[in-house]
Amino acid sequence: MIGAGQLARMTHQAAIALGVEVCVLARSDRDSAVLAGAPFRIGSPSSVEDLLAATEGCDVVTFDHELIPLAHLAELQRRGRQLHPAPSALRLAQDKSEARSALFAAGFPLPGFAPVSSIGDVEDFASQHKWPVVLKRARGGYDGRGVHVVESAEQAFRLLAPKDSQKDEGAPGGEWIAEQFVELAAELTILLARDHQGRTALYPPIQTVQREGMLRHLLMPAPLSRAVTEEAAGIATAIAEAVGATGILAVEMFLDSSGTLSVNELAMRPHNSGHATIEAAETSQFEQHLRAVLGWPLGPTTLRSPAATVNLIGGAEAADPALRLPAALAVGGVHVHLYAKATRPGRKLGHVTALGSDPAEALERAEAAAAILTGR
Amino acid sequence: MIGAGQLARMTHQAAIALGVEVCVLARSDRDSAVLAGAPFRIGSPSSVEDLLAATEGCDVVTFDHELIPLAHLAELQRRGRQLHPAPSALRLAQDKSEARSALFAAGFPLPGFAPVSSIGDVEDFASQHKWPVVLKRARGGYDGRGVHVVESAEQAFRLLAPKDSQKDEGAPGGEWIAEQFVELAAELTILLARDHQGRTALYPPIQTVQREGMLRHLLMPAPLSRAVTEEAAGIATAIAEAVGATGILAVEMFLDSSGTLSVNELAMRPHNSGHATIEAAETSQFEQHLRAVLGWPLGPTTLRSPAATVNLIGGAEAADPALRLPAALAVGGVHVHLYAKATRPGRKLGHVTALGSDPAEALERAEAAAAILTGR
Repeated sequence: MIGAGQLARMTHQAAIALGVEVCVLARSDRDSAVLAGAPFRIGSPSSVEDLLAATEGCDVVTFDHELIPLAHLAELQRRGRQLHPAPSALRLAQDKSEARSALFAAGFPLPGFAPVSSIGDVEDFASQHKWPVVLKRARGGYDGRGVHVVESAEQAFRLLAPKDSQKDEGAPGGEWIAEQFVELAAELTILLARDHQGRTALYPPIQTVQREGMLRHLLMPAPLSRAVTEEAAGIATAIAEAVGATGILAVEMFLDSSGTLSVNELAMRPHNSGHATIEAAETSQFEQHLRAVLGWPLGPTTLRSPAATVNLIGGAEAADPALRLPAALAVGGVHVHLYAKATRPGRKLGHVTALGSDPAEALERAEAAAAILTGR
Repeated sequence: MIGAGQLARMTHQAAIALGVEVCVLARSDRDSAVLAGAPFRIGSPSSVEDLLAATEGCDVVTFDHELIPLAHLAELQRRGRQLHPAPSALRLAQDKSEARSALFAAGFPLPGFAPVSSIGDVEDFASQHKWPVVLKRARGGYDGRGVHVVESAEQAFRLLAPKDSQKDEGAPGGEWIAEQFVELAAELTILLARDHQGRTALYPPIQTVQREGMLRHLLMPAPLSRAVTEEAAGIATAIAEAVGATGILAVEMFLDSSGTLSVNELAMRPHNSGHATIEAAETSQFEQHLRAVLGWPLGPTTLRSPAATVNLIGGAEAADPALRLPAALAVGGVHVHLYAKATRPGRKLGHVTALGSDPAEALERAEAAAAILTGR
């Protein structure tokens, strides 16, 4: 697995039961998956030598993040590595501009969008779609980083011609896309797995609730109408087929105030919105990802119980949630997952899942424990 | 954790979510828990130096097995280590003779028993309780090793005066106890956790089904009458209090054909009969053991679903269940746990749990997957 963050950590945890060894390419021996005991190699996903060394002898290569140059992926393939998802699919999770063009060409519903490289382009886009306009880095953004709602050409200018000190963290590329601003009624994720033969297994729909551009909590199953969730599931399944994904595919979608669905982002790995599957689904997304990329039978995706998950986001004060864990565990029926990461404002440090009679009831308990852990 | 077998492996797996580091004292770097990535130190539990080195700097010391000399446990305590369970409790899980004497003195129901050191002792016991007589090693037996049903003084003689080649594997001590043979209606285990303050949390009762002296499968909740399981739970809770256990306590019991319960063995660690708690209970026995020994709040023990577990026992042919895993995963709704152990006849290589509408229905699926994995 390329990358050793919390997704690799939880994949390693699931792999223990299956007797599968998940070797990770880590930045350091303090990475989240390394601290959980995953076999590791230190290196950079920007180095083809490191990628080749880390994947030597592996049956399958898969990913904890998308930040690997396409040329390197091609070289890994040329050297006989089995990549799942394949680079032809993964590039759509890497590049928002390419993803939108491909999905638009295939007829999937999207907010209006255009690649932009100048203020003139943004003004043209706004004259067609109205202000505000959403500006996104084409590559490298995640967790809301690299996504900006701008109200005017002046705001757009400040963004597109940044001083060094204002450069967007985690945004290696310089390309931008403009996107129509959607009045959101809700956001949802359809999580599914697709195996080597193209068989898919669909999880119940997940409603995601963002705050300050980061996923704060999620409800599973999404308390949305059956018509909406069935339409969303149909779109996601068709996308999986169209892009040829293998492993977990997460399709993030917008539901606007008129009841129309549109596709936001694709992720081709276990996804933050799917963590409740660990306790709530018959097969967790981490075990499912392993099964799918190894070419093994997919597991059932039925829900044992409604669930809610709350992310633990590092705050301004540097409190470590591990120190507050005993108090949080006194909240009955919560499942705490800590990622063993140093706390930093805005950083995901863990999550809490609760099961309940319905997602809203579960959310109350998960939030109570999360509030203790983050000291809020 | 002293020992690095499958119990330590699954404890490490549970510890990842809590951000707890479980350092194990392992016999080799191929031990089950080490292969799952638990931090480890190689050494022997018979060496007080190794025990001291492995437990240096740990908040709490706990156990994957009972094979640690009592004098060494006392030395660890003298050197400031926090042992859970405490040696005063653990000795009853180590020594069947001591356990029976202590439980008998405290008024708990037991089959008739007596320490025996000669054929004359066995004949005296048989004249009081009738043949057959059960002869057990006082220490070191597990999984049915060290337990023998003898029909006559002649059979007893062959056992008590063994040639070297017949010596009982895994039985370091030379002491024996004789026990009344019980006509079994059923065997059951009551699994509970007890924390530092003496609070207990009781899991639903588990029926265990042995074959050739090894636990083959278990059903949770036990399909036995409420009167029986409540009586059993009451006995186990009283034993936990009487012996001052901390962590998971498993009380194995006999139900005889007249409906009478008696206590068989005690184990003070996560227990083979409790593996279904990983998927079926709100808190797994592994997380619960960690919470209990760390002095943290115990988690809820409610069952999300009835469940059955089947052990994977190595057969005469040396097939590795890992090679048959994809085929076994095609059985819908089974949770396979492999221990990454070299296969050997009679060795526990893993287990399969299935959830279902009732334990019997779940058992069918778990057995189907287990049959594929073991090639039977």
